[in-house]
Amino acid sequence: MSDTPGVLGAIEAGGTKFLCAIAGADGRIIDELRIPTETPEQTLGAAGRFFAESIAAHGSLAALGIGSFGPLSLNPAADDYGHITTTPKPGWQNADLIGHFREVTNAPIAFDTDVNCAAIGEHLFGSGRGLDSFCYVTVGTGIGVGVFIAGAPHGGANHPEAGHIPLPRAQGDEGFAGICPFHGDCAEGMASGPAMRARWGQPAESLPDDHPAWEIEADYLAALCATLSYVVRPERIVLGGGVMEAPSMLGRVRESLLRKLGGYDASLAALSMGDYLAPPTAGASTGLTGALALAHRTAYGEWPAGWSPEP
Amino acid sequence: MSDTPGVLGAIEAGGTKFLCAIAGADGRIIDELRIPTETPEQTLGAAGRFFAESIAAHGSLAALGIGSFGPLSLNPAADDYGHITTTPKPGWQNADLIGHFREVTNAPIAFDTDVNCAAIGEHLFGSGRGLDSFCYVTVGTGIGVGVFIAGAPHGGANHPEAGHIPLPRAQGDEGFAGICPFHGDCAEGMASGPAMRARWGQPAESLPDDHPAWEIEADYLAALCATLSYVVRPERIVLGGGVMEAPSMLGRVRESLLRKLGGYDASLAALSMGDYLAPPTAGASTGLTGALALAHRTAYGEWPAGWSPEP
Repeated sequence: MSDTPGVLGAIEAGGTKFLCAIAGADGRIIDELRIPTETPEQTLGAAGRFFAESIAAHGSLAALGIGSFGPLSLNPAADDYGHITTTPKPGWQNADLIGHFREVTNAPIAFDTDVNCAAIGEHLFGSGRGLDSFCYVTVGTGIGVGVFIAGAPHGGANHPEAGHIPLPRAQGDEGFAGICPFHGDCAEGMASGPAMRARWGQPAESLPDDHPAWEIEADYLAALCATLSYVVRPERIVLGGGVMEAPSMLGRVRESLLRKLGGYDASLAALSMGDYLAPPTAGASTGLTGALALAHRTAYGEWPAGWSPEP
Repeated sequence: MSDTPGVLGAIEAGGTKFLCAIAGADGRIIDELRIPTETPEQTLGAAGRFFAESIAAHGSLAALGIGSFGPLSLNPAADDYGHITTTPKPGWQNADLIGHFREVTNAPIAFDTDVNCAAIGEHLFGSGRGLDSFCYVTVGTGIGVGVFIAGAPHGGANHPEAGHIPLPRAQGDEGFAGICPFHGDCAEGMASGPAMRARWGQPAESLPDDHPAWEIEADYLAALCATLSYVVRPERIVLGGGVMEAPSMLGRVRESLLRKLGGYDASLAALSMGDYLAPPTAGASTGLTGALALAHRTAYGEWPAGWSPEP
């Protein structure tokens, strides 16, 4: 066993894949594992074996950071602290992530949402750099929102679930009931990738750029951004995820948001939409990087300085 | 001149009246003035004379706290810092509150929204006591939202304007365009007191308790509360203002919010609505008390301890 001092562990626990990594205190990745998300037994088992072998090879972890799909229980006083709670993902309701990985690693564990971890990555290395407050929105198989306030991920009584807010219907979209099993036509129910597929009978990526779907989609995402603007008053909103990769989307959301704000409030009216709504720039592994940074803060009491983002 | 050490000043600047007060460091009010909100020249002039006379009688102010109707510019780096900005209130656009009262009092000035000051009052003496995070919502001539996060009023890049978020139409309310001059059918445009009056042709307080207006109103306020719940994840939402004085309103909003949350997210599903949605309990002068507390924090670096709320 080669003892590497201060080795950090991280997990990006997604609905389709788990990324596990260990890194030095300098953020350099020593070893990683990518596994599909199957049953908790299979996936947590494989991830646990990865960390057990890492510890055998490199010594104990200074801390482990976990960024997970949710909803999660983030309240340390709650009985279910560290669990995934009411997810519709079969088998994962009440999965006890902290309990499992504490047993395997015996390390202090930092636990937050996948989107808050991605926001941490953007804060350190991407479009949130230098900002005290910003929102990170990802539009893909769901709609996730990470909120940074005063330079740290916002928790409140638990974590934001702003992808589930009620929104007005876009013009021309009155007939679609929405697909959220809890709310029907909340933001995620109307504007996630699977909602677009259900609404139009084909995956979003196969819709031509002049299809009316995109204006309707932009309307919902702009309404979500208007709400975040009025409630959080962030310095920026970072908009990513598969649906935002459609070439015209970011421009359409910017135009729609400008119309929706309607010139209200001088400090909002003065914003340049091109600067205010930005794409993520911290790279595809921003969630894993954020989970590693969370481990660093847990082990050393501060965000890492001087790390370079992994390619 | 009898020099009172550490005397604090406060202004609750509302759209219909200004309350001005000076108090000792113990929060006990020494003198106060209530004046109608007319032109800035008249009202700011009269308030200025009150403080000039107070200073002549009691000595200089340790600090002045101002809680004002808005929107406001709260960013100290902005050219218009301390101004009311795009208010529809005639004559008050760009009124420079900090500039005026700095000239009159020569004191350090703390400046926040009327609703954040009311939230401070509720935090110290009312339904927000002991809570790290809560929202204060007032539904009257407008809809104002104060947000407490980590034990302090939330600013972000500026202050929340969550009364202006887009909301889905309530069933049966499709024909009404809303009255917000900026957004038409935002929350305030659909559910403020004047919106109810415009929608039903009579003031809200004259509508009988079994009028369909109340279910529609509860639907909008519950949608606002659902949004605040998902974005801020507060420990509580305090709901006040003239419209909330209708006897059945709080109960209706609780029932509607429970339906809207739809059992999503264990930590939200576990909430008791009777505890989560609460009436304000800090008294009618909570905004003035909050502005005084803000002055205390500015003068002495901390929230006051041991004050009793004014009756």
